[in-house]
Amino acid sequence: MEDTTVSLVLFSGTDDRLGAAAILATGAAAMGRPVNLFLQYWALDAFRKDRVTADHGVVAEAGTAGAAMVKKDQTGPRHWSELLRQAKDIGDVRIHACALSMELFGITKEDLDPLVDDVEGVASFMSDATAGPITFI
Amino acid sequence: MEDTTVSLVLFSGTDDRLGAAAILATGAAAMGRPVNLFLQYWALDAFRKDRVTADHGVVAEAGTAGAAMVKKDQTGPRHWSELLRQAKDIGDVRIHACALSMELFGITKEDLDPLVDDVEGVASFMSDATAGPITFI
Amino acid sequence: MEDTTVSLVLFSGTDDRLGAAAILATGAAAMGRPVNLFLQYWALDAFRKDRVTADHGVVAEAGTAGAAMVKKDQTGPRHWSELLRQAKDIGDVRIHACALSMELFGITKEDLDPLVDDVEGVASFMSDATAGPITFI
Repeated sequence: MEDTTVSLVLFSGTDDRLGAAAILATGAAAMGRPVNLFLQYWALDAFRKDRVTADHGVVAEAGTAGAAMVKKDQTGPRHWSELLRQAKDIGDVRIHACALSMELFGITKEDLDPLVDDVEGVASFMSDATAGPITFI
Repeated sequence: MEDTTVSLVLFSGTDDRLGAAAILATGAAAMGRPVNLFLQYWALDAFRKDRVTADHGVVAEAGTAGAAMVKKDQTGPRHWSELLRQAKDIGDVRIHACALSMELFGITKEDLDPLVDDVEGVASFMSDATAGPITFI
Repeated sequence: MEDTTVSLVLFSGTDDRLGAAAILATGAAAMGRPVNLFLQYWALDAFRKDRVTADHGVVAEAGTAGAAMVKKDQTGPRHWSELLRQAKDIGDVRIHACALSMELFGITKEDLDPLVDDVEGVASFMSDATAGPITFI
């Protein structure tokens, strides 16, 4: 079952959680597994084309020192958006925006970074997730 | 493997995370998959019958504008509790309260919304999760 | 498929999330399933040997009363580190530190509690996660 799809639901839009998600996506792609990302809520907001590399903060528990550490780390080729770009280059990685969240934020496909492949409903996302893990981040 | 059970561990009790959980549960149920929800910690607290539709706030990263957006969205038939009710109508969706968390909060089955089917231990939950994803929200 | 590995990515370092993770790990181990934990970011920080039993706080949504409740619960044999120790005793439970997060924090294996078995890369972690759930906590 090495090629079952890894489905990652990205909910959080902080740079540390997005960084963790990008590392997992890269690792799965490097193992030759298809990867499907589904962007909901605050993660979707972080993929807007005008703010994808902006400072999205970190989780509350990180504290000031932790926030500074992540901010320093999330630069240049180490930024989560660059990791995802590389993951798409080396493997079968697709990024879908959740239709319901698009509606909630009142945005359209044109508002999103080109990293995002398309907009789809949750049933469509689930139909690609029948034989593998579903990881919520 | 289209009918493997989707196991959702609900830990967070904020309305945005519960909303995301309800969307995933609905999507899985619409695909004909059994769905098992396991309520721990703050999610369990949110299913108390006297506060299921109360304002449970959002994650810290949402900010004031995000909180207002979610609050406006989580009303009437769009509320996560209503989505879960619909998911139970269309599919095989069961909601279990974690026995250890019940003990931690000092509450009994009677304190919970009728959406919750029963109280069970983690081993029992895990025994239904042998062939599918386990998603922690 | 009862023996597929349960892969738990521990990202959060708060005592409530670590407590939930320990309960799931214990439940899976009790069912005879191999369990692989992968420590990233703030969870890795919580496994430093000089602070594993320190107060790591709780998620923001818990509030003051929730924080006090968890703090009271996370003592002695009920502490998440003790639950993990017991899980390792009863089953095949391995705890790996994420190499990238080690680098980010600038720490070495010697800085970590003996609960942690080794340091490994994400590709190695993913290669053990081919036939089971991947749960992000």
